Amino acid sequence: MEFSIRPATRDDCKDLARMLRELADYHEITECVTQTDLEQDGFRENPCFHFFIAEVPEQHKSKDGYTKIGMAFYYFSYSMIYSRSISLENLYVMDEFRGKGVGKALFKKVAQEGVAAGCREISFIVIHWNKPAFGFYFSQGCQDMTIEKGYHLVSCSGAAMERLGRS
Amino acid sequence: MEFSIRPATRDDCKDLARMLRELADYHEITECVTQTDLEQDGFRENPCFHFFIAEVPEQHKSKDGYTKIGMAFYYFSYSMIYSRSISLENLYVMDEFRGKGVGKALFKKVAQEGVAAGCREISFIVIHWNKPAFGFYFSQGCQDMTIEKGYHLVSCSGAAMERLGRS
Repeated sequence: MEFSIRPATRDDCKDLARMLRELADYHEITECVTQTDLEQDGFRENPCFHFFIAEVPEQHKSKDGYTKIGMAFYYFSYSMIYSRSISLENLYVMDEFRGKGVGKALFKKVAQEGVAAGCREISFIVIHWNKPAFGFYFSQGCQDMTIEKGYHLVSCSGAAMERLGRS
Repeated sequence: MEFSIRPATRDDCKDLARMLRELADYHEITECVTQTDLEQDGFRENPCFHFFIAEVPEQHKSKDGYTKIGMAFYYFSYSMIYSRSISLENLYVMDEFRGKGVGKALFKKVAQEGVAAGCREISFIVIHWNKPAFGFYFSQGCQDMTIEKGYHLVSCSGAAMERLGRS
């Protein structure tokens, strides 16, 4: 299948928001960033995140008429082990375009971007039941640090964050 | 015990490197960022991270003569749920100064910084056997997302990162 991967522009925020909403629905997550959040936070002087868009030619558009059919959504992070790193918040390919190498191409693009910026790790979250995702990432040489090292992700949000942060 | 918390300056990188090395030793991690990495990456135009330093007056210095006795090492991140967020890479208080509220004060400072910057989550990694750390974070209202939601941390580094990123 013909497709291309390119860095996103502000005009891609509408499709990024749509794909994030699709992901959120799949994970039964209510809250999700909006197009406005993305436009503001991703296209300012020090952008909070970056993303790549996977696109197909018009003649291969999705059944709903979309040509932007996948994305990798990431930001630069920092590790006491690896120093400069990348956190991959999401990598997504629309259902009807899976199994065609789009996810692999997106992941590779993020790795290339990372290596070019001196990053030595890409880290991300995978939910325990998402076996196809683990299969894909293991095939790329990734390690499950929760299994290997016992790393747990802990979060302070909502009322706890407000209470601490406003006191 | 008298102590103060303040944003770090470049001059604090030596003590940050020392405390990160102490943490790495505790976790039996070989590799660790150096003072030079920290000076370069934390004090440039778009810093890769930020940190707070906890300090005691000269008369309460550690048995090895240190007055910088704790730190919170973080960077700004982005979440599809919460939008702007903070990733807390490490929070550390030297052994002999624990149980005196320094960790709590550092964590609160990070939360205040986060709320002021419009962040709605602080996330971080805790290793499964570190029961005192879980106890502390739960007392602050945090949730273990690995237990609650089955989130696993996956990492692409070393040879896998090189292979993907340079191809």
